Amino acid sequence: MATATRSKAARGGIDLGGTKIQAVVVDGRNRVLGESRTATPTSGGPKDVADAMCDALLASAASAGIQAKDLRGVGVGSPGSADEETGVVASARNLPGWEGAYPLGARLTEALGTPVRIGNDVQVATDAEFSLGAGRDYKSVLGVFWGTGVGGGIILNGKPWLGRGSAGEIGHVVVKRGGRRCPCGRKGCMEAYAGRKAMEDRARKLVEKGEETQLFEIMEHRGDDRLKSGIWERALRHGDKMAEDLLDEAVKAIGTGVASCLNVLDVEAMILGGGLGLRFGEPFLKRIEKQAMKNLFTSDEDPPDFRMASLGDLGGAIGAALLVKNLKSG
Amino acid sequence: MATATRSKAARGGIDLGGTKIQAVVVDGRNRVLGESRTATPTSGGPKDVADAMCDALLASAASAGIQAKDLRGVGVGSPGSADEETGVVASARNLPGWEGAYPLGARLTEALGTPVRIGNDVQVATDAEFSLGAGRDYKSVLGVFWGTGVGGGIILNGKPWLGRGSAGEIGHVVVKRGGRRCPCGRKGCMEAYAGRKAMEDRARKLVEKGEETQLFEIMEHRGDDRLKSGIWERALRHGDKMAEDLLDEAVKAIGTGVASCLNVLDVEAMILGGGLGLRFGEPFLKRIEKQAMKNLFTSDEDPPDFRMASLGDLGGAIGAALLVKNLKSG
Repeated sequence: MATATRSKAARGGIDLGGTKIQAVVVDGRNRVLGESRTATPTSGGPKDVADAMCDALLASAASAGIQAKDLRGVGVGSPGSADEETGVVASARNLPGWEGAYPLGARLTEALGTPVRIGNDVQVATDAEFSLGAGRDYKSVLGVFWGTGVGGGIILNGKPWLGRGSAGEIGHVVVKRGGRRCPCGRKGCMEAYAGRKAMEDRARKLVEKGEETQLFEIMEHRGDDRLKSGIWERALRHGDKMAEDLLDEAVKAIGTGVASCLNVLDVEAMILGGGLGLRFGEPFLKRIEKQAMKNLFTSDEDPPDFRMASLGDLGGAIGAALLVKNLKSG
Repeated sequence: MATATRSKAARGGIDLGGTKIQAVVVDGRNRVLGESRTATPTSGGPKDVADAMCDALLASAASAGIQAKDLRGVGVGSPGSADEETGVVASARNLPGWEGAYPLGARLTEALGTPVRIGNDVQVATDAEFSLGAGRDYKSVLGVFWGTGVGGGIILNGKPWLGRGSAGEIGHVVVKRGGRRCPCGRKGCMEAYAGRKAMEDRARKLVEKGEETQLFEIMEHRGDDRLKSGIWERALRHGDKMAEDLLDEAVKAIGTGVASCLNVLDVEAMILGGGLGLRFGEPFLKRIEKQAMKNLFTSDEDPPDFRMASLGDLGGAIGAALLVKNLKSG
């Protein structure tokens, strides 16, 4: 296939995370032609984040041998409150200086020279798994993204269910009334026990109380400033008791909260993704399923399927590229 | 309007509950022409229940001045697993001898001489509130029916969401992982704290432990054999501490569980009905709303509305009559 032909159908996708920015360029059949990843800036403001996003997209286009301006368009999966109509992103609290609203779509369109569309990060990742990944065989699924927080994406009868714009906030489904304080400020949320950030906060508190763990040694050894998923995995492999206990709590919280969600939605399958979800994979999925069965209304007769996300780390960016699938080629 | 004309559009509806059977006859505009209520048999089997349903429907038709055979049809809102296609009802565990499957639709059609359609009790009550009652102004609502158990009905974009057939089991959303045993056998369900049956079980246990309450005295004084909603209300009015405490736990469980449901669905409104919901009304709705706000993701900016069901005790039967609205007149 000639580059000229290929680039007409080629699209870009950017997954904007709290830790990293992942960019891809895909062809008309959603095959990855090039990809690039960079760390999310931890200081500065929205403009610095937008610049880093441009760099990642340009690098992924270069690796695909395509110029950014020749892409049909670029989709972005964004945290915070993303307005698909205007491309404005507000309240992205995991990103530096992004409490207010920033015209991310307009900024990227100008910088990249191609149309940019912004969507919700969890929803585009769910769409990708539904259209191309582990959800292909189903009509209705719940996507569970276990990472810094716990996000949920809902597909009902083949269409995203967004509610009034805030559907799928499964991280804030309660697993214990009056329980542990969540980073969101509420009590007893699933995320208060299972989110990477909440688990790190908890580990720091336990250390202050005098409990022992290798988690922070491993972190310092790696030159990191937060407990990334790989650090948790390493600590587990070393038999670190605190890591085991906190991950056990996380599994229980996710299993319980997901059971509640499934009792409400009764979809065909739940699909587990996210940084921690992908890192811990099938063995943890099995543990989550086992925990969920304790509270699943349909456990005896017809439980839903529990599946791992199959697009891996690139799922979010590939899903973002789906946002511009139906743009007319320029 | 002549009786002959009126009866062509008139329809019957039967709400089959664990405590009572409510029948109505409505006109083409869903106005109640006649109604009748009878106690649900506590012994015997499905045939006895079907006979009692016929009696109630015939009495409601008589009070409307219409013969049952002249009705366009009769709809039934049934507990258990109701198959709308075949009219077979299975696993209606709150009804006597109804563990297996029984062809309720066929039996009633034969006895009443008019077509009978069977639907799920909670779903028809939700449909009634959505079409004719407190949900008229919304496109997407969650119906919460607080009675013997806690049932949920979901309407999304104007259509019932049934999932694979078991959606809306909100009574089994977890409010406390590993918490109190629910009549369903699982632990920590909303219904374990809020269902009338679970509250009665709990009260009996507390009395066995030596705690005091007027609940059972009031029950015996009334000649009842279970703690119906009116007994709870009377005990509250007498300042009964146990009744206050158990209802307080129920409010907290419903508020917490409903918040979880709304965080997943993000619908425009929740509508509270059911025997206990209607009995305790607005003041308890306010308490439930206040509790829910503690865990609602959208509490700060755009919380959903909390509304009382407006069709009252007859809502279930009126909703059942909607099941035969589109039948051709015979």
